[in-house]
Amino acid sequence: MNPAPYSSLEEEFQRYHTLQGAAAVLRWDAAVLMPPGSAGVRGEQLALLESQAHAILASPRVAHLLGRAEAGEAALEPWEQANLRLMRRRVERATALPRRLVAELAECGTQAESAWRRARQESDFELFRPYLESLLALEREKAWRLGERLGSTPYAALLDEFDPGRDPGTVNSLFAELGERLPGLVGAIMEAQADAPPLPPLPEVPLARQRQLAQRLAARLGFDFTRGRLDESAHPMTSGVPGDVRITSRYAQGDLLSGLMAVVHECGHALYEQALPERWRRQPVGQACSMTVHESQALFLERVTGHGEPFIRWLASFLTFELGADPAWEVDNLRRRLGRVQRGLIRVEADEATYPLHVLLRHELEQALLDGSLAVGDLPEAWNEAMRHRLGLLPGNDAEGCLQDVHWAVGAFGYFCTYALGSLMAAQLQQSLLLQQPGLPEQVSHGDFTALGQWLREQVHSQASRWDSDALLQRVSGRQLNAWVFLDHLQRRYLEAR
Amino acid sequence: MNPAPYSSLEEEFQRYHTLQGAAAVLRWDAAVLMPPGSAGVRGEQLALLESQAHAILASPRVAHLLGRAEAGEAALEPWEQANLRLMRRRVERATALPRRLVAELAECGTQAESAWRRARQESDFELFRPYLESLLALEREKAWRLGERLGSTPYAALLDEFDPGRDPGTVNSLFAELGERLPGLVGAIMEAQADAPPLPPLPEVPLARQRQLAQRLAARLGFDFTRGRLDESAHPMTSGVPGDVRITSRYAQGDLLSGLMAVVHECGHALYEQALPERWRRQPVGQACSMTVHESQALFLERVTGHGEPFIRWLASFLTFELGADPAWEVDNLRRRLGRVQRGLIRVEADEATYPLHVLLRHELEQALLDGSLAVGDLPEAWNEAMRHRLGLLPGNDAEGCLQDVHWAVGAFGYFCTYALGSLMAAQLQQSLLLQQPGLPEQVSHGDFTALGQWLREQVHSQASRWDSDALLQRVSGRQLNAWVFLDHLQRRYLEAR
Repeated sequence: MNPAPYSSLEEEFQRYHTLQGAAAVLRWDAAVLMPPGSAGVRGEQLALLESQAHAILASPRVAHLLGRAEAGEAALEPWEQANLRLMRRRVERATALPRRLVAELAECGTQAESAWRRARQESDFELFRPYLESLLALEREKAWRLGERLGSTPYAALLDEFDPGRDPGTVNSLFAELGERLPGLVGAIMEAQADAPPLPPLPEVPLARQRQLAQRLAARLGFDFTRGRLDESAHPMTSGVPGDVRITSRYAQGDLLSGLMAVVHECGHALYEQALPERWRRQPVGQACSMTVHESQALFLERVTGHGEPFIRWLASFLTFELGADPAWEVDNLRRRLGRVQRGLIRVEADEATYPLHVLLRHELEQALLDGSLAVGDLPEAWNEAMRHRLGLLPGNDAEGCLQDVHWAVGAFGYFCTYALGSLMAAQLQQSLLLQQPGLPEQVSHGDFTALGQWLREQVHSQASRWDSDALLQRVSGRQLNAWVFLDHLQRRYLEAR
Repeated sequence: MNPAPYSSLEEEFQRYHTLQGAAAVLRWDAAVLMPPGSAGVRGEQLALLESQAHAILASPRVAHLLGRAEAGEAALEPWEQANLRLMRRRVERATALPRRLVAELAECGTQAESAWRRARQESDFELFRPYLESLLALEREKAWRLGERLGSTPYAALLDEFDPGRDPGTVNSLFAELGERLPGLVGAIMEAQADAPPLPPLPEVPLARQRQLAQRLAARLGFDFTRGRLDESAHPMTSGVPGDVRITSRYAQGDLLSGLMAVVHECGHALYEQALPERWRRQPVGQACSMTVHESQALFLERVTGHGEPFIRWLASFLTFELGADPAWEVDNLRRRLGRVQRGLIRVEADEATYPLHVLLRHELEQALLDGSLAVGDLPEAWNEAMRHRLGLLPGNDAEGCLQDVHWAVGAFGYFCTYALGSLMAAQLQQSLLLQQPGLPEQVSHGDFTALGQWLREQVHSQASRWDSDALLQRVSGRQLNAWVFLDHLQRRYLEAR
């Protein structure tokens, strides 16, 4: 007797995810330690693995099995049913685009990224413009074709890749609330912080010692070093596969906190990956739910928890124990340093209050680029105008303006909003956690992250892609994603505490 | 018009080698830095990549293209013709074994290796015996089936994987000569060295400093760090792909020379890989010729060159410059330390004079195991008897006897002899090199390895698999592989010099 079509599909997707996992380790290697002259060879390896993975999803065999499995869906378990629906979506996305378009997108993305690097270095948007124009034309075709296949608007089809099931209408109304309320709140916080005395300087800490502290911090937060590594790369990241999670940070002698807090951020991502359910992690339903939920986990650990009073109390004692007493490690000074709110030009340097404004600006502009209401040639001016409007600042040049992020250069349209959605979700998770586990801050202040990790594991990590982002949040908190919990979190942390 | 069948075959083999290259980087990662708990995930990735690679060779498409390309072989260039013949051999080997046997070999090899690790740790052959028995039965079937397909004896078919085209008869007669002459030569050398005063102790050198010296040494020898890395692993090795060569060594505070000479050995392998011809390196004809030639390159650099007077003179000045003067770095003391000849029980610790005797013993026993004249249960006794006969020593237990090597546990029957064949070839290459470039020792004594590297590149590396091992040696030296040049090399180095 043949195995049931659903089981055969699981085997096909297991092969798909195993190939993707091999590619993920090779990409980590490329970012962390590959010799510079080996990029060409690695590019060929990755392109081949990706095309082999795509061939599985696009095979007639999988299409046939999907149809038969769907006919028998009623007999499947709930996790299997959810898996089957996600399999269908993967296949639809993989087969919606003609091979010609996929090849052009890859080729154009590679060229655009390298043009973007040059353009940013020389702060010359004109070097990037023709590449972005070509790429945008392809992205519009992609969005249109995907939307047609998935029965959604083109933009919704792009967003769906990063946050499956997310309605762009909701995003826009959440962002409208943030756009209205945040600037005033930021102004009030900055005013409240204006009179603070200068902070004591951060002591220099040798890089080898920082690496050691980073390892200890990650272990304390619950990162499992028997199935993961912490290394260094130009930009901190989380990579690898659930059974072999690779995180990175970067260290500077005079800026201990930046390297360590990057570790906390990546640990938020990593704890999620490491706790994905063993049984499902090589199936679509066993992957992390969305980039929104992923970012919520990183921000929950780094900012909601990491910039909060209990964590700072523990961090102060940890640094004093490891490095000796120093005014910079005193609780008040750590709190003020981590909690400093300032309007700035650069997204990746922004604090938790101003960060969403950087995202709003990009979200607005990328939609205008995609629907054609903004021409690529007008992007620098539109960016500067939006920056003035949102943050009251004017970039001195395009490198600190519209050339600062890599996302559009690699065709990741629809991605930016998940950063801000993740902020909102992190605040809502914190609200639920405090209601359910009121003793938790006390434990965190003693450096005990066990209960915190367990709650995240039960509520979020172990659910993987069983539900979409909104349904997951609904189950944890009984509420939908909203802007007010986040705004209230800022209000209390920055304007009411002490 | 369809592309010519030969071109299509090149594309298929390019995909094959790209998959193998991805797997090679993942195996390097597993040996060097993978977290211990990730072995299961990695095993799945590697098994899938290997099965995808095998599927290419075993596809009806490739069989069909091969037939058509062979019909038009006369129109191909010589390199293409050589490539086509190697393609045919790869396909024959890949399709000679039924899928059932391949799976059983993989499964049994994994189990046997882990049983071997336990058995060696506890020095208890009985723990390993049943696994080796099962594995040997499968290996015999494999040898028989391969031999049938390739039209050779079973043992020749195994050897063919590691040294294509090598005739086991030649090996046996070369080894007979070595077996007859070497013991007496070893005895004479040991006698000549018996009265030497004790050597000054090696100074302790911190590991970080050793790593730095290792990097400098490798760069000096010509290792290209823009397309390669030098790291650490339990056993020194060369891995990766020609465009991304990964070598490793291991360091001990009290034994600087062992870590550095391992670097020299691996650089011998690495220079070969890095100089394989760009145009062909993803085709069968562009791979390294054989394990015999590979080992000859490592031994040529580490022993023939590295234990020779000119290199030692340079090494003495290098170590003095880097670490300050020390009696241990004096030329005479370095020469005596590197040139010490001693009968020992352990192959990987053996010097260049006794090393082939370790190989002879294994070569003889593995043939007896394969042809059934030696039962697995009698292996420990046969080993000890052979060790007494060849080296005059009796192992105290099986861990330092028949359990010391991993090769048989992973099914690498037919491999051992290439180590000794590589020694012979290295000596013959040296003879030719000195005839062709008499000024070379002078350059080496000044730390200038340029001409040495260039000669190897032209004569050996750039030829890849254009010829088989013997034809290659014939082209370089005008002679076939023989035992006398090697024996003469030992005679002159240990009994006649100074």
